[in-house]
Amino acid sequence: MEKKKITFADIAAYTNFSKTTISRYFNNPDSLTLENQEIIAQALIDLDYQENKLAKVFANGKSEFVGIIIPNLYLHYYAEMLNQILNTYEKFGYKFLVFVGNHKKETEQQYIHELLAYKIEGMIVLSHTIPSEELASYHVPLVVIEREDKYVNSVSTDNYMGAVQGTSLLIKNNCDVLLHVNSPVAENVPAFGRIQGFLDTCAEHNIRHELILRDVGHSHQEIRKAMYEVYQYTKQNYPGLKKGLFLSNDTLANSMLNIIFRDFGTLPDDYRIIGFDDSPVADGAILPISTVGQQIDKIAYEAMELLVTLMNERKKRRPAPQTKLIHKNVTPVLIRRETTD
Amino acid sequence: MEKKKITFADIAAYTNFSKTTISRYFNNPDSLTLENQEIIAQALIDLDYQENKLAKVFANGKSEFVGIIIPNLYLHYYAEMLNQILNTYEKFGYKFLVFVGNHKKETEQQYIHELLAYKIEGMIVLSHTIPSEELASYHVPLVVIEREDKYVNSVSTDNYMGAVQGTSLLIKNNCDVLLHVNSPVAENVPAFGRIQGFLDTCAEHNIRHELILRDVGHSHQEIRKAMYEVYQYTKQNYPGLKKGLFLSNDTLANSMLNIIFRDFGTLPDDYRIIGFDDSPVADGAILPISTVGQQIDKIAYEAMELLVTLMNERKKRRPAPQTKLIHKNVTPVLIRRETTD
Repeated sequence: MEKKKITFADIAAYTNFSKTTISRYFNNPDSLTLENQEIIAQALIDLDYQENKLAKVFANGKSEFVGIIIPNLYLHYYAEMLNQILNTYEKFGYKFLVFVGNHKKETEQQYIHELLAYKIEGMIVLSHTIPSEELASYHVPLVVIEREDKYVNSVSTDNYMGAVQGTSLLIKNNCDVLLHVNSPVAENVPAFGRIQGFLDTCAEHNIRHELILRDVGHSHQEIRKAMYEVYQYTKQNYPGLKKGLFLSNDTLANSMLNIIFRDFGTLPDDYRIIGFDDSPVADGAILPISTVGQQIDKIAYEAMELLVTLMNERKKRRPAPQTKLIHKNVTPVLIRRETTD
Repeated sequence: MEKKKITFADIAAYTNFSKTTISRYFNNPDSLTLENQEIIAQALIDLDYQENKLAKVFANGKSEFVGIIIPNLYLHYYAEMLNQILNTYEKFGYKFLVFVGNHKKETEQQYIHELLAYKIEGMIVLSHTIPSEELASYHVPLVVIEREDKYVNSVSTDNYMGAVQGTSLLIKNNCDVLLHVNSPVAENVPAFGRIQGFLDTCAEHNIRHELILRDVGHSHQEIRKAMYEVYQYTKQNYPGLKKGLFLSNDTLANSMLNIIFRDFGTLPDDYRIIGFDDSPVADGAILPISTVGQQIDKIAYEAMELLVTLMNERKKRRPAPQTKLIHKNVTPVLIRRETTD
């Protein structure tokens, strides 16, 4: 089954050229006559020679590799983002070395160190473990997505605008009180915009509201327990009022909807629900859930396009240093389904 | 920002050794005295020299790259399988070049051709587009997961045993009639075992049953429509009987449960439901769904362990040709939740 490896010596023997001529064919073909180029090209086909791209990379430094560091693939958001980044292969031709971090900072640093040793041309980082100042110190073209980005280029959802859209819909649905349920979020990450957008929109419309920040855990059991407690709280504290619930993601929204639906056998008129992400769980819920849809395909494409620009600059004989960081925002899209009017 | 590249000449100048000595340090360190090795090692630190792994790969052919070809990342099953394969980095040290096929056969072939040119050491294939005979012709260590595997090594779930477990539970729940809903599946792919296991178990227990094979589409709308029609069919054809529904995956099971739950405001006693996969949609459903859980972590690990064995053999000076293909099965685990007794 093993295929015999074809060497330059084999090609030289087959064509009666010297090994130096064969080497020149690969590294500087125009130094040979067209006729001789064709003779060697035919020999490669006859001998079933397999191109060794690594040899080329070794010669010119262009590996066509991009590293992707992603926190997990459990959340649909990350799986779909990875999917969309990988899909750019047809457009840009870059191959992707993918690493899942799982919040292990040291393993992540070790992996990045390896990537750099393999002469990757650029990196896309979605994990939050390594501060952007450290990422910038790697001196490799780099774009982060939806995370702290003080010292690096980034593409993010316009979380603030998404929260404004979601909150405004609940206000138009004539809710008497609005509640935003979220985890505690640091102010320097883009997702904080969901909290700020909610608060600003409520203040602007002078509507009664409450921000509920709590750790909801990761397992379905933990999420169910947390959402059950929030539901009981809203029942006790806002009886007789129409409650608009804005959940920070669709998994929470689905869990909340299930709890209310099991209580009433339907979604009663005094509860309206909206999620965030447009993940499959929203559309597949007992009632398809209204949500703020992130344009993941667009975010992935913008990140890769920006990275390609940076990588191309780096390949020039005299690359211009980047004088100003680029931070792009992609506007989300409100998707109205059956949990709002 | 650009870091100056350190060359062998720089290291030679710094240490007062010749360039040949520096080169020997990298390619055959034991030819130098321990003392000289230490002097050069210290110089590398002083000069902040970055190892060029590609140079090493070029020298010894061990790229430490493994290619993964996956059909999509939309289905949780594939996202989680990829997650578990990538997680083996800590154990085995291999880096993964990941490609998502999306059923584009030619792009997939082109990508694999590129991978081979980059001297990947092995490949894990989950997509179904390329027949195993063609995969075998690439002459690279290769393991496929859960697909047609006539000419290649493979790891799959024991689908037959999973179907036996699920069907047996519905029989123990005293169902009067059992229905298995699936897409049309070719007999040479492992998933066909779900159909065969269902039919054999029903025949063995001499229980009334029906196999419903139909294309259910991919979007939630299409799936909802298909499941609604199946639900109406069971109502009309088996009135007054306790119906045990065995769905071929959890997305179908969730959609079916939602339709029945919306009709009755609960899951009535004359319907029992079981899915397949143990994806998050099963645990996050309006009633947590009983399911046949695939041990994705174990499948991923077994596949990678087998591939590492094959790759190590290939690195020997005289690799032994593989005389017999290996096909491993991993037994699934029945998970009882609230849609069965």
